[in-house]
Amino acid sequence: MPDISVEFQPPGRRVEIQIGATLLEAARRAGVNLLATCGGQGTCHACRVRIASGAVSALTPEEQTALTPAEQEAGLRLACQCIARGDVRVELPPESLSAPQRLSLEGLDTQVTLDPPVRPLEVNLEPPSLSDPRSDATRLLAAIQASDAHLSRRLLTSLSEHLRRQAWKARLAVRGREIIALLPPTNPLLGLAVDLGTTKLAAYLVNLENGTTLARAGEMNPQIVYGEDVISRIHYANTHPDGREKMQSCVVEALNQMVKELVTQVHVRAENIVEVVVVGNTAMHHLLAGLPVKQLGESPYVPAVSDALEFPAAEIGLEIAPAACIYLPPNIAGYVGADHVAMALAAEVHRTHRTVLAVDIGTNTEISLAVNGRLFTCSCASGPAFEGAHITDGMRAAPGAIEKVSIGETIRVTTIENLPPVGICGSGVLDAVAELTRVGALDRRGNFKTGHPLVQSRAGKHQVVLIPAEASGHGRPITLSRADIHEIQLAKGAIRAGLEILLSEAGIRADELDEILVAGAFGTYLDLESALRVGMFPPVPLQKFRQIGNAAGTGARQLLLSRKRRQEADDFARRTCYVELTRHKQFLPLFTRGMMLEPMQPDTGPNAAAHN
Amino acid sequence: MPDISVEFQPPGRRVEIQIGATLLEAARRAGVNLLATCGGQGTCHACRVRIASGAVSALTPEEQTALTPAEQEAGLRLACQCIARGDVRVELPPESLSAPQRLSLEGLDTQVTLDPPVRPLEVNLEPPSLSDPRSDATRLLAAIQASDAHLSRRLLTSLSEHLRRQAWKARLAVRGREIIALLPPTNPLLGLAVDLGTTKLAAYLVNLENGTTLARAGEMNPQIVYGEDVISRIHYANTHPDGREKMQSCVVEALNQMVKELVTQVHVRAENIVEVVVVGNTAMHHLLAGLPVKQLGESPYVPAVSDALEFPAAEIGLEIAPAACIYLPPNIAGYVGADHVAMALAAEVHRTHRTVLAVDIGTNTEISLAVNGRLFTCSCASGPAFEGAHITDGMRAAPGAIEKVSIGETIRVTTIENLPPVGICGSGVLDAVAELTRVGALDRRGNFKTGHPLVQSRAGKHQVVLIPAEASGHGRPITLSRADIHEIQLAKGAIRAGLEILLSEAGIRADELDEILVAGAFGTYLDLESALRVGMFPPVPLQKFRQIGNAAGTGARQLLLSRKRRQEADDFARRTCYVELTRHKQFLPLFTRGMMLEPMQPDTGPNAAAHN
Repeated sequence: MPDISVEFQPPGRRVEIQIGATLLEAARRAGVNLLATCGGQGTCHACRVRIASGAVSALTPEEQTALTPAEQEAGLRLACQCIARGDVRVELPPESLSAPQRLSLEGLDTQVTLDPPVRPLEVNLEPPSLSDPRSDATRLLAAIQASDAHLSRRLLTSLSEHLRRQAWKARLAVRGREIIALLPPTNPLLGLAVDLGTTKLAAYLVNLENGTTLARAGEMNPQIVYGEDVISRIHYANTHPDGREKMQSCVVEALNQMVKELVTQVHVRAENIVEVVVVGNTAMHHLLAGLPVKQLGESPYVPAVSDALEFPAAEIGLEIAPAACIYLPPNIAGYVGADHVAMALAAEVHRTHRTVLAVDIGTNTEISLAVNGRLFTCSCASGPAFEGAHITDGMRAAPGAIEKVSIGETIRVTTIENLPPVGICGSGVLDAVAELTRVGALDRRGNFKTGHPLVQSRAGKHQVVLIPAEASGHGRPITLSRADIHEIQLAKGAIRAGLEILLSEAGIRADELDEILVAGAFGTYLDLESALRVGMFPPVPLQKFRQIGNAAGTGARQLLLSRKRRQEADDFARRTCYVELTRHKQFLPLFTRGMMLEPMQPDTGPNAAAHN
Repeated sequence: MPDISVEFQPPGRRVEIQIGATLLEAARRAGVNLLATCGGQGTCHACRVRIASGAVSALTPEEQTALTPAEQEAGLRLACQCIARGDVRVELPPESLSAPQRLSLEGLDTQVTLDPPVRPLEVNLEPPSLSDPRSDATRLLAAIQASDAHLSRRLLTSLSEHLRRQAWKARLAVRGREIIALLPPTNPLLGLAVDLGTTKLAAYLVNLENGTTLARAGEMNPQIVYGEDVISRIHYANTHPDGREKMQSCVVEALNQMVKELVTQVHVRAENIVEVVVVGNTAMHHLLAGLPVKQLGESPYVPAVSDALEFPAAEIGLEIAPAACIYLPPNIAGYVGADHVAMALAAEVHRTHRTVLAVDIGTNTEISLAVNGRLFTCSCASGPAFEGAHITDGMRAAPGAIEKVSIGETIRVTTIENLPPVGICGSGVLDAVAELTRVGALDRRGNFKTGHPLVQSRAGKHQVVLIPAEASGHGRPITLSRADIHEIQLAKGAIRAGLEILLSEAGIRADELDEILVAGAFGTYLDLESALRVGMFPPVPLQKFRQIGNAAGTGARQLLLSRKRRQEADDFARRTCYVELTRHKQFLPLFTRGMMLEPMQPDTGPNAAAHN
């Protein structure tokens, strides 16, 4: 059979396929990693593409469901459903390109003893009669011999109907004294764990009875339209009367959508979800729960609540079992949230006997330090540079982003999915800065060396061209400016200052650290040697570092499965000594020193220089 | 000073008053009972009238607030504010006429030791700082030294703002471990007690700190548009997908409106209401709480829940303190509701050492019997005849209704407010039946005696004309037919059968009763001699009866003020032996015998006759 050519734009990659193959198969062969969580069943609706030219198969019923008439009119298709009938040009719409390529959903393995807060209980009731006209609730409570058990109004709204429809047999979901759900016999009890990031949402559907993760889903946080970062969302909430409500409802809507995807994937009903854990930073936590954030944005940056919070999922409109609860772990401060607590729990920072530093790098970087069972934590305003923001050609870690840079005879880069480069993400910038320093194009203060062959002068300003226009994916050069370098210096300087202050508060030296855990998407993909070379971390042997991925998501699943973990979370938050950096007298000198591009020794003065 | 003439239309009554008197004073002198719960302060806005002709004083500021421009344009005034300047014709608008004239809001006096579930606690906090950045919740809990206290998500949604607005001072409303509200200093804690009747709503605003009732309001139950009685509302819920939601929301809306009226009357805010008690029959209870009623309408008539129920008021949309709870007392069966429990508590049936029968007469009549601490209860389907329904010229106990009938030389009637008669209400029909029996116009089987001077024959059917057309308020005669008599026989027969069965279950005779309590609007106004004469009650000396008014409303207020009463309610519901009449083998013979119009002795055979 003759081959057909399919071209994907961007990245402008072409592949030859056989007639009858779907565009999703073509994309995979072309190395274009389209989202397709349903495995090409047409149910997840993630693999949307636009047919720019060429003949393709007719819309399938799945596509007619998934796409609005306007989208169909615009040539949108589901790649998994659409078959090329001849040479085709396919456009990947912006939402596909911005799809988070590296939602590190795996993280650490769950290592907790199964002890979930909700447990199943089978009941088989005698139906009522004129000689036994007890109320449905009384009958149920008598059958389970738990006179102190509690049935909420929300459960009672459907109890009578369920009992009759299920012929007086049921599988109860019991949470302490509370009955959460009355499911048909044999139905499994499921839980939902959510890592609610400022940028990304990751959700896990978990079987509470055996601890297995049944399905995963990832989405962008839709609040992004109200502001890229926490500060701008707080500002939005403060300046719009319904701002809080809008940001709450759009996240709840996204979660409801993810729940639908997850339960569809494993052929269960949303009513089987009887418990939810959500971890997120303090602002995301507050916005989800409908709490005020104004005081989070103003000194002294106080959360409305820091203890663990539980409330009925129905209160905020989450469409699962009607009486299911949402558990939000405790936070430690306005800028050290429950996601950091969950990460620390997953990494067992709370119970280690070793000396462990755990760093969660993001726009805000949270650091915890465990020393002989003592716990310290702080938060550094590291800014969004490592997420590609505020960098001339910066971008998120998406396809086509430069993620690695090395300089030998020439500048060599690696891009995500090996696509033609279209920008540079955090780990790429960090590499570039480390390499440019190593080859002498940058001095330790972050200034370009005039005359260095890599340094160009344009309009009186220095810059380095990493990728010339002709080699990039979009026909424009990819460069680094002095301002870009400065952003990285600010970010890594803040992190280093936080690390040093925590070590100093704990009264230990960096070489006493047994382990340094680096969490989060950027933390997972950054090159540790580069980070050490620019002095982002204290000079500690490489083998002491461990990159642990999305440990917050793992922690969330553990909190779903283990009541002990919840106690440990309370204990961790209570025991942790929070160090406020902004009022620490050593912060400013350490921050200034931390901006230097060198593997600074803690005891090294600002004038010492030591390039390797 | 010359007198001024004021005429009220309807009822077409004229009165002479002195210049300077308000129209409310005129109405009172004329015996026109306008609603004026505020005592004429211009705050309750209940005494609206329309000036049809004549000169009156200018609008007061109170009236300008109370009346919309359109209402002012239409000549509406508050009778308590408006002073006649000359002869005036006043129209009573329909809502004033249809206003329930006998919402017996008073009932028994509250006689409980003050021990409300919500108590005040003053706090005065140190504001947060960078050196003390504890969360607002942690700060508050530390200040009240109650580490096990609980702050719900709903409270937390406004906690931070309130603390800052109130300069870190607050009056807390504390309910067990839960903090319900954070009020400005000096604000009182208030409670709302509601008697949620099938026909009428009565609401009381109560000061939880001293037990006083601050204000009262009465409204018709707006669910009436979905059906006059419980059965038709259950039918509506079963046959309309959103029927339950609609009936719930219209009642909640009416309650919110009543809350607004109540708090306006006493110049407080709805947020000061921190606890609510609602008593109602089991169907009203279920519809308010959003519970299914289908199973209530089908044998074996099972409630979804019978235990006391508590839930956040915000869950059903009641607009008071955001974390306030609604308490619904236990019910005993599908047709013995929490209103009966509340009545029994108010009358102290639950703790009496005497032998007491308590009867709550309505469309459904609930009866409780206390014998040596043993408790029995049953429910009789007595039908709506005593509320004026299913009677040719029947009407509710509203102005113009015949409420008393006596027969001497002629038939003499008394009407409510002494207006020209327009119909006959329950107590009037009962009187009429008793008197017609006494004078021999009716036999004990309820048949008219052909040839008796009061009995007319029309189209082959017998009837008695109580009021000829020319003497009535609407120009039509007011009559009683055989069918009307039959309705009364069915009603009183059901009640009598229930009474006899309860006595028999308890193993006592009627003459062993120490007291018979008769509650409810009809029960308060019925003529006991008439009731005894037609055999509605066993032959018990008149002085053993006590008519106790709206005891359910009193019970609701007691349940608001006393946690002990709530325990007693649980205990009463648990201890009470519910007797299901429909399956009782003596019911049918006793019901048949009970229909006889005679002061039947329990041991009297159906052939015995004893007119007095």
